[in-house]
Amino acid sequence: MNRHGGYYGENKDKIIDFSVNINPLGISENIINRVKGSINNLIRYPEIDGITARGIIEENIGIDKEKIILGNGATELIYLFSRAIKADKVLIIQPTFNEYERAFRISGSEVYNFVLTERDSFAVNESNLLNRIKELEPDVLVLCNPNNPTGKFIDYHQLISVFNYINQIDSHIFVDESFIDFTGERNFLLLVDEYSIFILRSMTKFYAIPGIRLGYGIANKGLIKRLNYYKEPWTVNSIALDILTEIFEDKGYAIKTREWLVEEKKFLKEELEKIKNLTVFNSCTNFHLCKLMKHKAEKLKEELLKKGIYIRTCEDFKGLDSRYFRIAVRTQLENKKLINGLRDLL
Amino acid sequence: MNRHGGYYGENKDKIIDFSVNINPLGISENIINRVKGSINNLIRYPEIDGITARGIIEENIGIDKEKIILGNGATELIYLFSRAIKADKVLIIQPTFNEYERAFRISGSEVYNFVLTERDSFAVNESNLLNRIKELEPDVLVLCNPNNPTGKFIDYHQLISVFNYINQIDSHIFVDESFIDFTGERNFLLLVDEYSIFILRSMTKFYAIPGIRLGYGIANKGLIKRLNYYKEPWTVNSIALDILTEIFEDKGYAIKTREWLVEEKKFLKEELEKIKNLTVFNSCTNFHLCKLMKHKAEKLKEELLKKGIYIRTCEDFKGLDSRYFRIAVRTQLENKKLINGLRDLL
Repeated sequence: MNRHGGYYGENKDKIIDFSVNINPLGISENIINRVKGSINNLIRYPEIDGITARGIIEENIGIDKEKIILGNGATELIYLFSRAIKADKVLIIQPTFNEYERAFRISGSEVYNFVLTERDSFAVNESNLLNRIKELEPDVLVLCNPNNPTGKFIDYHQLISVFNYINQIDSHIFVDESFIDFTGERNFLLLVDEYSIFILRSMTKFYAIPGIRLGYGIANKGLIKRLNYYKEPWTVNSIALDILTEIFEDKGYAIKTREWLVEEKKFLKEELEKIKNLTVFNSCTNFHLCKLMKHKAEKLKEELLKKGIYIRTCEDFKGLDSRYFRIAVRTQLENKKLINGLRDLL
Repeated sequence: MNRHGGYYGENKDKIIDFSVNINPLGISENIINRVKGSINNLIRYPEIDGITARGIIEENIGIDKEKIILGNGATELIYLFSRAIKADKVLIIQPTFNEYERAFRISGSEVYNFVLTERDSFAVNESNLLNRIKELEPDVLVLCNPNNPTGKFIDYHQLISVFNYINQIDSHIFVDESFIDFTGERNFLLLVDEYSIFILRSMTKFYAIPGIRLGYGIANKGLIKRLNYYKEPWTVNSIALDILTEIFEDKGYAIKTREWLVEEKKFLKEELEKIKNLTVFNSCTNFHLCKLMKHKAEKLKEELLKKGIYIRTCEDFKGLDSRYFRIAVRTQLENKKLINGLRDLL
């Protein structure tokens, strides 16, 4: 399997990494200071039930801490969910993040894909999805929203008939909202009490801390209890637990990030659209899926790397092929380098 | 289940915590400085295959990095092993760390216990164990060496007939060496090529960094490959990966720790032996199992807590009961407070 996580080759400090969807504003000063202050806590085990950290999340998102579970990154919770649910059949809306499929497969589930196409702008057609679910009766429906790598967002109103049917057959919904903070879009939190839905959140991307490993999940108490039965102890390190206060308190960082994104995404998209032999898809979040008309993305990746730029080819995503690649929105200076590089090569 | 990980109640900074077996010399300056230097790396995903970190371990313990797997603490690897092996039957030498049993049970294994008794000084009788294994034919034999909570060490020569039989029936051996660094004892590394053995190591205890989550496992390449098939990506955070160099380079810290332990363990044991109504068991490592003659350990724990001292009661260990408790060896000043507290109460 092609496993990613950014550029780790030669001169890694000099390469501009568009392959990971990390906030380029960097780690906020508040978080950096809190990490420093937290070093002396490394001599203790992390609080085993994470109750203090869950309390901080409760205060900030208005969801009872008994409906929250912490993860060593969002990744732990993808795998934990797949193990706890022990689904026979899982339906994944594709193309999307590859770890869902891997997690369910190694947990013994049969994985089925509902593949969205470029012709439909990678949008979900509700009645087609409902028909597929009626036919398959999966134990879990998996979606990522906004979706990686297409950048598409779906409002839950568009899926209510699907969710109601899933409720009827006692199945579950898994929604990865790892990129929701970048959007102004409505999240799925309102559905937690009505449906057996698991909502996954990540601190990695928006707060630029993929190295620290911190995510959380939200669900009804019964589902959280079931996950806790399988949860391993002490998975979230002390520093990750300690910085939660700073993450939520730093409203300025969040505002600055959204301002940067609105402006830079517009600039980047407009400039990319001027480049020939390249299609750029609309995105609700901080990255763009792109498609080459005449070239292979792998070749482009190699050529860009010579210019100090690294992109994510997408041949390993279901429904995409060797022509697609994904780029994160970065700072204007970096985005300009990418645009110049693409202009030279295409 | 009674889940531990140190004292997290009121006034936690003022309580002397004898319940966790952490090196009281604290985190070394080198590690603290490296953590500070590593903060800027939190903006990157941890290296997905941990190859740099595994290379550092290879250089320092002389085992090929392809025979090494990293863990988010030793705990991740206990659970990963149990999932990857999918054992029908597991035999655990008890009393021991409770997570082995939990890990195998939630992975669907039937767990059997080979319970050592106080009458035999919690020592393993090789022929009894061999008979039990011939009768049961378990897929995995689990032992902790030196053992938590008894502090007993077993030399692998004493188990060769057992290991040979396990090889014959294509089963596996799981040895947790989380406390081996505190002993001058021989570890099981030599057996890695001859047996299907998994050796677990932890950085938590000896280097006083339970908050950071760092452990590793050693096995033959086939077994490591099987574990990697099930391993979740990005489980070990960047700081944990970054400090590995400092961990191994700081020979002074290791020497100082062993000197402290020899001296303090002798002092603590001699003083404890003077206290009436208390039995102290010999230990090869940095903690002592103790037994009360006339009191309940839970009551003692409550009374000691009033004096700012926290101990680990052992009623949840197989083969132990409400009279047993475990204490870590700490600094002389702290050990004296414990001794005075016990003397007052017993």
